[in-house]
Amino acid sequence: MPELRKDPIVGRWVIISTDRAKRPTDFVREQGDFKGGFCPFCYGNESKTPPEILAYRPSSNGNPAQRDVPGWTVRVVPNKFPALGIEGNLNRQAEGMFDKMNGVGAHEVIIEHPQHEATLASLPDKAVEDVLWAYRDRILDLRQDRRFKYILIFKNHGEAAGASLEHPHSQLIALPILPRNVVAELEGAKQYFIYKERCVFCDIIRQEQESGVRVIAENESFLTIAPFAPRFPFESWILPKRHESAFENSSSQMYKDLARAIKNLLNRADRVLDSPAYNLVIHTAPVQDANLEHYHWHIEFMPKLTKTAGFEWGTGFYINPTPPEEAARFLREVNLEAAKPVPGALKK
Amino acid sequence: MPELRKDPIVGRWVIISTDRAKRPTDFVREQGDFKGGFCPFCYGNESKTPPEILAYRPSSNGNPAQRDVPGWTVRVVPNKFPALGIEGNLNRQAEGMFDKMNGVGAHEVIIEHPQHEATLASLPDKAVEDVLWAYRDRILDLRQDRRFKYILIFKNHGEAAGASLEHPHSQLIALPILPRNVVAELEGAKQYFIYKERCVFCDIIRQEQESGVRVIAENESFLTIAPFAPRFPFESWILPKRHESAFENSSSQMYKDLARAIKNLLNRADRVLDSPAYNLVIHTAPVQDANLEHYHWHIEFMPKLTKTAGFEWGTGFYINPTPPEEAARFLREVNLEAAKPVPGALKK
Repeated sequence: MPELRKDPIVGRWVIISTDRAKRPTDFVREQGDFKGGFCPFCYGNESKTPPEILAYRPSSNGNPAQRDVPGWTVRVVPNKFPALGIEGNLNRQAEGMFDKMNGVGAHEVIIEHPQHEATLASLPDKAVEDVLWAYRDRILDLRQDRRFKYILIFKNHGEAAGASLEHPHSQLIALPILPRNVVAELEGAKQYFIYKERCVFCDIIRQEQESGVRVIAENESFLTIAPFAPRFPFESWILPKRHESAFENSSSQMYKDLARAIKNLLNRADRVLDSPAYNLVIHTAPVQDANLEHYHWHIEFMPKLTKTAGFEWGTGFYINPTPPEEAARFLREVNLEAAKPVPGALKK
Repeated sequence: MPELRKDPIVGRWVIISTDRAKRPTDFVREQGDFKGGFCPFCYGNESKTPPEILAYRPSSNGNPAQRDVPGWTVRVVPNKFPALGIEGNLNRQAEGMFDKMNGVGAHEVIIEHPQHEATLASLPDKAVEDVLWAYRDRILDLRQDRRFKYILIFKNHGEAAGASLEHPHSQLIALPILPRNVVAELEGAKQYFIYKERCVFCDIIRQEQESGVRVIAENESFLTIAPFAPRFPFESWILPKRHESAFENSSSQMYKDLARAIKNLLNRADRVLDSPAYNLVIHTAPVQDANLEHYHWHIEFMPKLTKTAGFEWGTGFYINPTPPEEAARFLREVNLEAAKPVPGALKK
């Protein structure tokens, strides 16, 4: 059973993942088998993943014989090497002055599309929307388990961004604790609300719309911006224009518009930055909280451009060589209609 | 002039380094010229760096004609591409709801040794000690400038850890603000002190010495451990056994013992992890603070083993596949006397 351990100084919880325990030689020999070879996420290989938790099968009509076979459009399975275990209770305990608990949680993989070479950027709008519905369905299911305080949904695209398989997928981790960054965001937003009696994200949206210099794109429901103080070059946020603290409480029109906003941003980044590796993370309220006045869910997009980031890793302090106004201008002004072969485009 | 900008939600200050501004093509074309080629830090190339701020020249007797020429053992120069500018005042101002100030600060490079192939692990004890004295001398000088609140000293070793030049060097950044991670550490340690009336680091030292399972090494003045909740595999901390909040207030015996402790840890890591890239960061109190009862300076060592860390970057949440007890055992039990060619060893 993995263990959750708390740093006694800053209060950060860390998963010590004993099941994946690595000896020194595992690191030294680490080989990329990212491309090529057998793919457990492709049609026909459904038996090579743990049994599916959820799948959208347009033609199955819920027939149980249709499980773990081809025909799905989006498929959710447990991670074969989960960082957390789904069974058991937390069993919070001390080890001398230290705090720990069982690493109870869920770790799932959302296989976004059957086609191995697809990318979120190249999929039809409806296919991206289906991925968002799968996120929502899994959150609604998992939040019934009162052990879970937070559900983290994120996507690593490309080997440089931490993806271990090329086939397009996202990950979901349900946690019995709030990650420290989430706590910082919630507390910061709450302080602002106490002082101003307004949501800080709503204020950001208003100011960015007025000034325009950091706006990348906008549709009916979402504003895409380069944030004022980005940690990374070309970091971008997608914010719902209407206040809402939880991703899963959005209306169906919102998922349609969000699918378009995500595709739009990814295509801009693919053009301007030559199809970069990236991380996409949904920042949303803790699952057991009711609607929060001070928090506003959003998506953060971080292309992985600088190969190395020793300074930032070591110090927690960020130096960003690209002003967000310039990044926004490049991303805003790119011609999405111009013919440019996108390496990850769907084969015709 | 670079700009310091504050994230309005979490309060994190970020350097937007306009002088180094990068266009998209700079990232796409990014090439490693880490090894080989011209080295501005080698003997004879002193004119290729900005004029030296400090150099130890055992034979010069302070003769000013001896500046920016060979003969030094440790040499400190301004960073040629500084992230911050040394001139001017902070000029704190608003941009609508946002906060920013001039990117005033110092960014220096400590060239640790004349020999290009040297590593801290392979240098004689006295040479490592001299590097520590250079850190101290620069802190004492810079802290007289009341604009600076924090001095960050860190070392990126190896390209994978963010080093841009192979020649052994460390970096110093003097900041007009406290980095968010520093604030978190100071506040966490203070909370513990308020509750327990003891320093959390002193308590950690006592518990780790008693249990022994996470101890890597120990000498008269320093304890080297794998921390209880490490973010990264083989993360290690070097802690002074006597309470002291600021690195620069140590006695001369401490620098001798610290040089030995650092060399000891680096040699263990070189053996066990095949000479990994790493980051080394000095965690110390803000320079304008008097001695703090609740804070305890220390060094954090993070070998760069997992090639990619998308999850952690995106989410701020860490999964560590190596329990610290196992990491400590590997590092503790390695035979430092066994003959093993260390790739970065000094040429005879």
